[in-house]
Amino acid sequence: MLVSISAAFLGVAPAQDLRATGDLGVVVERATGSLLIIDQSEHAAIGRVEGLGDLSHASVVFSADERFAFVFGRDGGLTKVDLLTQSIDGRVVQSGNAIGGAISDDGQLVAVSNYEPGGVRVFDAETLESVADIPTGSKTIGLVDAPGRRFVFTLWDAGETWIADFSGEEPAITRIGGIGRNPYDALITGDGRRYIAGLFGEDGLTALDLWQDPPVPQRILSGYGKGEEALPVYKMPHLEGWALAGERFVLPAVGRHEVLWVDSRTLAEAGRTATHGQPVFAVARPDGRQVWVNFAHPLNDTIEVIDTLTPGPAVLHMEFTARGHEVWVSVRDAGRVDIYDARSFEKLGEIAAENPSGIFFTARAHRTGL
Amino acid sequence: MLVSISAAFLGVAPAQDLRATGDLGVVVERATGSLLIIDQSEHAAIGRVEGLGDLSHASVVFSADERFAFVFGRDGGLTKVDLLTQSIDGRVVQSGNAIGGAISDDGQLVAVSNYEPGGVRVFDAETLESVADIPTGSKTIGLVDAPGRRFVFTLWDAGETWIADFSGEEPAITRIGGIGRNPYDALITGDGRRYIAGLFGEDGLTALDLWQDPPVPQRILSGYGKGEEALPVYKMPHLEGWALAGERFVLPAVGRHEVLWVDSRTLAEAGRTATHGQPVFAVARPDGRQVWVNFAHPLNDTIEVIDTLTPGPAVLHMEFTARGHEVWVSVRDAGRVDIYDARSFEKLGEIAAENPSGIFFTARAHRTGL
Repeated sequence: MLVSISAAFLGVAPAQDLRATGDLGVVVERATGSLLIIDQSEHAAIGRVEGLGDLSHASVVFSADERFAFVFGRDGGLTKVDLLTQSIDGRVVQSGNAIGGAISDDGQLVAVSNYEPGGVRVFDAETLESVADIPTGSKTIGLVDAPGRRFVFTLWDAGETWIADFSGEEPAITRIGGIGRNPYDALITGDGRRYIAGLFGEDGLTALDLWQDPPVPQRILSGYGKGEEALPVYKMPHLEGWALAGERFVLPAVGRHEVLWVDSRTLAEAGRTATHGQPVFAVARPDGRQVWVNFAHPLNDTIEVIDTLTPGPAVLHMEFTARGHEVWVSVRDAGRVDIYDARSFEKLGEIAAENPSGIFFTARAHRTGL
Repeated sequence: MLVSISAAFLGVAPAQDLRATGDLGVVVERATGSLLIIDQSEHAAIGRVEGLGDLSHASVVFSADERFAFVFGRDGGLTKVDLLTQSIDGRVVQSGNAIGGAISDDGQLVAVSNYEPGGVRVFDAETLESVADIPTGSKTIGLVDAPGRRFVFTLWDAGETWIADFSGEEPAITRIGGIGRNPYDALITGDGRRYIAGLFGEDGLTALDLWQDPPVPQRILSGYGKGEEALPVYKMPHLEGWALAGERFVLPAVGRHEVLWVDSRTLAEAGRTATHGQPVFAVARPDGRQVWVNFAHPLNDTIEVIDTLTPGPAVLHMEFTARGHEVWVSVRDAGRVDIYDARSFEKLGEIAAENPSGIFFTARAHRTGL
């Protein structure tokens, strides 16, 4: 006991009380508005933080030191959660209805994209104090971080993409028109170079090369999203469901039982593969050798790989460990997260969770566009 | 004080005593056999650990939780350093003369490549107990981790590459002959697919596609290393100096004032760029837009980018932050580490260090082949 007292007095915690953060993560428990804190190495939940508001469609980014999770709720709440103390470090309700956020490459700024009243708000990652308010007169979607302390986002109503550059004293905004009708989501490639927006109002997608100054919109995959009314679209696929597998992106086709292969250099279609159902997410194992696909209702009990796993009802999210030895799967309606060996497909463990949806490991802190 | 006592009693350290590990790193102080622990966000050294033996040509890998650094010394010492308690957690002197190591994708095994007596030894990452001893009858070089709990390494004398697969009960070894005369170093691409060995005894390099079973050696870049005796070779460039910049690798030419560009798909030469001197390392900024190059003696006071920085005498190592907003540079003979904004080239700070050489951030824990 004396040892503990003197260690506390010296400001150094006893070794056994210390915990590193490189293998932690969170599972979004949407129904209860809570976050389960998980330890990837231990295959275990190590705590739960409650009181995060409406977490339907929630997303998460991490601080550069991998200590804090910034949780973007649907209700406009931005909550900073301390993974070490397992408590809320700060919370602001910054709009009425938000859709995701991003953290700048230097870890100092957190941006939130808003539906209602629209626009983007930017906060100090340390204090959650407001740094900038960027009204757009539109719902904003597809907010991502880009290298050089920049955020990129797109206006649903105006069909414009804006680049907000925070590297100087004042934020500098570049507006790029002609993105297309009703862009509904966007992604940035892992190197931060290409920004690609999906269009609700027309077929195809629009790509920007952020190395151009200013970037000129380029239409790609003109058949993408084309109806042919083959099948009803149960769910517009998230573009974050795009995955880079070796030299090709793989992405869910819209309203079809297919994934598309796209050449990563030319952004031209390179083939299609028939799938078990209408894909929602396609996730590449980090080595790019396998792609794991889950499906829309009513086939959402199945994951397709080279082999097919059937882990249970309603698979919502898959997250690979950073170097790809395991994949963690949210099985919402069964109230658990399943852990698989990504090579043998052996089930390694499971963790009870309240209606789990997204799973996010802290290794995302070190990647662009996640 | 009462609060601290009760927190210690409960096994939870006070919040202010906790530290996350995602933005930590180490600087190798070769002359003093010590390791400086650095905090990337604070731009500061936060501690020093001594007693690591001979750290000339040392390298470092990190545990999956980013708490522990495994330091491979030239003298065969393998030291496990706890970045949180800033102390040595374990140390074995496992051979007389070693050359680098690797950690398995699941973080459970640490492998060391030995010159003397040769071979590879594998240790439990938790305890440093011996797990396997793989004699090769040769100096071994180019040891890397590959996906699927595998290590890949190459025999200097025999010109063979071996793949040691630890995914089953017993390690399974695959031997691949015909790599070439006297391979001196090797790398694995970030997706874990291609393994490329440099040859001391002949021109060109040898590539293996690890997705083939068994992989068949392919000769590439037949002119690479070719003498023409244009210039004396001051130092064989490390192949870890290869960098993936967008669609091309960039690598130091041997004995010439040039970097080579190599198509990442075909592995064919795609061009050359004249440089200030004989390059040692070429490091791509994580977005691939810039390549930073340092040089052999006597031009080792200079870094070449698009612009040229002259930070001081003997630049030994450059390490970008994970998302590339800063680059940290070892300036050995000046006894310091300089921190630059990777875009504006503004100097942001410096840290005193004893003859610093390698700089390693914990974000490496989440990458293959580092």
